[in-house]
Amino acid sequence: MTDGSTGKGAATMAKTEYIIEPGTHEIVMTRLFDAPRELVFKAMTDPALVTNWWGPRDLTTTVDKMDVRPGGTWRFIQRDPAGNEFAFHGVYHLVNPPERVVDTFEFEGMPGHVAMQTLTLEEFEGKTRLVQRSVFQSIEDRDGMVQSGMEKGSSESMDRLAELLAELSKESRAR
Amino acid sequence: MTDGSTGKGAATMAKTEYIIEPGTHEIVMTRLFDAPRELVFKAMTDPALVTNWWGPRDLTTTVDKMDVRPGGTWRFIQRDPAGNEFAFHGVYHLVNPPERVVDTFEFEGMPGHVAMQTLTLEEFEGKTRLVQRSVFQSIEDRDGMVQSGMEKGSSESMDRLAELLAELSKESRAR
Repeated sequence: MTDGSTGKGAATMAKTEYIIEPGTHEIVMTRLFDAPRELVFKAMTDPALVTNWWGPRDLTTTVDKMDVRPGGTWRFIQRDPAGNEFAFHGVYHLVNPPERVVDTFEFEGMPGHVAMQTLTLEEFEGKTRLVQRSVFQSIEDRDGMVQSGMEKGSSESMDRLAELLAELSKESRAR
Repeated sequence: MTDGSTGKGAATMAKTEYIIEPGTHEIVMTRLFDAPRELVFKAMTDPALVTNWWGPRDLTTTVDKMDVRPGGTWRFIQRDPAGNEFAFHGVYHLVNPPERVVDTFEFEGMPGHVAMQTLTLEEFEGKTRLVQRSVFQSIEDRDGMVQSGMEKGSSESMDRLAELLAELSKESRAR
């Protein structure tokens, strides 16, 4: 286990993969989870669960707003150990449980730079493949996001989500 | 005047221009209007005015919903002379009068295919330059929109908007 995760639960931790074609507006992120689709969808859309995995491990995330329906808004605030705050917000365009969410995404530290995210969950043999396509307003915005270290941060989020899903699956089996 | 417009008002009708780079997710549309920015913004965001220019001339447009604020939804219905209906909807992410609107766009005849639109209005010397950047979820979706004859339809909308602005400017001078 040298992939940077804590190694909780899974002996063979999956990797988060990215497709970032030069000269396009898009980032495609893919991750396989050892959990059913309904559970992955719930972990991603329940305000009480999202704070357990959203963002890097050294920041705490609180949900300011999270109204998961078309036209609903979301706003998350991250705090680092020094007390600095970073906020993000967006609007849901489409919510189709348990398979699809389309929403917008803006980091308030760079106001006016907006991405549109399409989350798709596919289930096969009890596992769930997550595909998130983000398109940016310009190729420059996309490249800026890549250069900001986005991959490290979102891979850490995906690892934390995998750990949460392992715990939730264990709880559900224990019941 | 052989540019397909009715030629009302303007002796030198501006053209709507498009940048559609191969292999990208984007369509950029540009148009110059002989009207102040506040008026262009109003014509584009007032439900009572938008029906006068949105869509081709041979269709009538009605506003089902149009709540122009972040998180607000819009839904327009077009009817052709035979009574067929075509509906479109989206959600506003950002509304910054009179210069910027970011929203999503979906044709209900192709559900789940969503674009994000960024409208920017710049004023100089009493004229207004409109730039609308649309990014699609995939290059295929973008190419499909281009092949659907989008340019003809949206150029007709832009011509109708120019005519409406000419009328509104005349009314405002007459007062």
